[in-house]
Amino acid sequence: MKSKFVVTVEFGETDPAAIVFYPNFFRWFDASAWRLFAKAGLTFDVFREEFGLIGAPIVEARSKFIKPLRFEDSIEITSYVASWKQKTFNLVHEVRKDGEVCAEGLEIRVCAERLKDGSQGIRAVPIPDEIRKRLSADD
Amino acid sequence: MKSKFVVTVEFGETDPAAIVFYPNFFRWFDASAWRLFAKAGLTFDVFREEFGLIGAPIVEARSKFIKPLRFEDSIEITSYVASWKQKTFNLVHEVRKDGEVCAEGLEIRVCAERLKDGSQGIRAVPIPDEIRKRLSADD
Amino acid sequence: MKSKFVVTVEFGETDPAAIVFYPNFFRWFDASAWRLFAKAGLTFDVFREEFGLIGAPIVEARSKFIKPLRFEDSIEITSYVASWKQKTFNLVHEVRKDGEVCAEGLEIRVCAERLKDGSQGIRAVPIPDEIRKRLSADD
Amino acid sequence: MKSKFVVTVEFGETDPAAIVFYPNFFRWFDASAWRLFAKAGLTFDVFREEFGLIGAPIVEARSKFIKPLRFEDSIEITSYVASWKQKTFNLVHEVRKDGEVCAEGLEIRVCAERLKDGSQGIRAVPIPDEIRKRLSADD
Repeated sequence: MKSKFVVTVEFGETDPAAIVFYPNFFRWFDASAWRLFAKAGLTFDVFREEFGLIGAPIVEARSKFIKPLRFEDSIEITSYVASWKQKTFNLVHEVRKDGEVCAEGLEIRVCAERLKDGSQGIRAVPIPDEIRKRLSADD
Repeated sequence: MKSKFVVTVEFGETDPAAIVFYPNFFRWFDASAWRLFAKAGLTFDVFREEFGLIGAPIVEARSKFIKPLRFEDSIEITSYVASWKQKTFNLVHEVRKDGEVCAEGLEIRVCAERLKDGSQGIRAVPIPDEIRKRLSADD
Repeated sequence: MKSKFVVTVEFGETDPAAIVFYPNFFRWFDASAWRLFAKAGLTFDVFREEFGLIGAPIVEARSKFIKPLRFEDSIEITSYVASWKQKTFNLVHEVRKDGEVCAEGLEIRVCAERLKDGSQGIRAVPIPDEIRKRLSADD
Repeated sequence: MKSKFVVTVEFGETDPAAIVFYPNFFRWFDASAWRLFAKAGLTFDVFREEFGLIGAPIVEARSKFIKPLRFEDSIEITSYVASWKQKTFNLVHEVRKDGEVCAEGLEIRVCAERLKDGSQGIRAVPIPDEIRKRLSADD
């Protein structure tokens, strides 16, 4: 399963060099991840109510920035799960402008639940089969 | 040369799971990079006026997120150049809370100038010796 | 002339109370203002190249927040110029969810140019007739 | 009671005109409000645990922007409660650079609790006397 997310670069996302300030790419990756999850029926409410999870927090994130983006550019972000381990999965985010790759992102995420001790702590749990299945379904 | 940058986690930097929304780590890395540059005498004005550069844009960024951070946490970010190539350099950002590592970031940056063709385009140039020298000085 | 701008509330725009962190409304107002300008043929490049202006900076901004918004909410922002003075104009931003008003924003903006003294300074200029005319055209 | 909050303008907070993108002022106002609350002993945990409140959400925000700020500027934000009503209070935020006022902000906030119906809804409650008393104490 792949999701497509179209973003228009906003004025406030660009810097004095008139190019996108790079942390915004990671904001877009997170937003694109949630669109992929939603496409798989995994909204924030479903994570909490059906699976007892607080969501799928990040343990690692990376991006290569290949071509700079400017205000008013329109980009398309293609997101999908590239691989699974027992407790982590790798999400790939390809950013294209006019079909050309501008950035390649990777997020390594876990499924996490609140600790039962009443603290605000969280811990990773084995990825539920149902979550893996939904994110691996055909488009 | 190493810089130390103290950050307090703000309310608006945390999410419904009450932990820091991860793109904010990259905002802090960029801010910490500029503090290291400033310590080496490389302010934004110096980049432009002394070196004819628009600054040191990112070509790759990564972070491992080891312990979640919460609102009102105080963290210290230690930043330094870990290695140099002809056109790129690697900046390391270590995020600690109470001495314990919470995140480890890496930024690969270049030195860039505006294209001379009147466009808004930019291109990487060999890193000036003087920039390497200043960022390699003792504290 | 009125513009309509559809926004989906992102995870990272919400806070530990699970509602939108309010500065994001102003990010949306600015983005919606640029969409209104673009509809009137006033892109960032047109401001600079045709009018010699750096854009239309803010001198005052306000918003009433009537109903809280949550992650995955879809909202529509209607933006238009409500009044003109010689050097300022008032932009209204109405935020609706399912037709119901959630926030009412106001931005007071000027048209500004760079000072000719080589400094980074800017100053407000009388609003060009052509800009007023384009933003007052029928939809 | 007044709080002082020192902020350094970051690169990513400025725009292609090389001045601060205005929603960042509201991010700083919120951060400065939390510092005032903390000075009065009203941390996020105290709001929740001692008063059963989710915090002090915004119902209205305004700012006048008097002088533009640039990357590397250091500013001081003075925050205090200027007036009280039964359910709302007005927070003033004065932004100064080198002693000169650059922006004047106002936030109108309420004290809010979660609805008891199990929904994610919130509602304003009369401001507890103890909260008013703490925020009105001498410095």
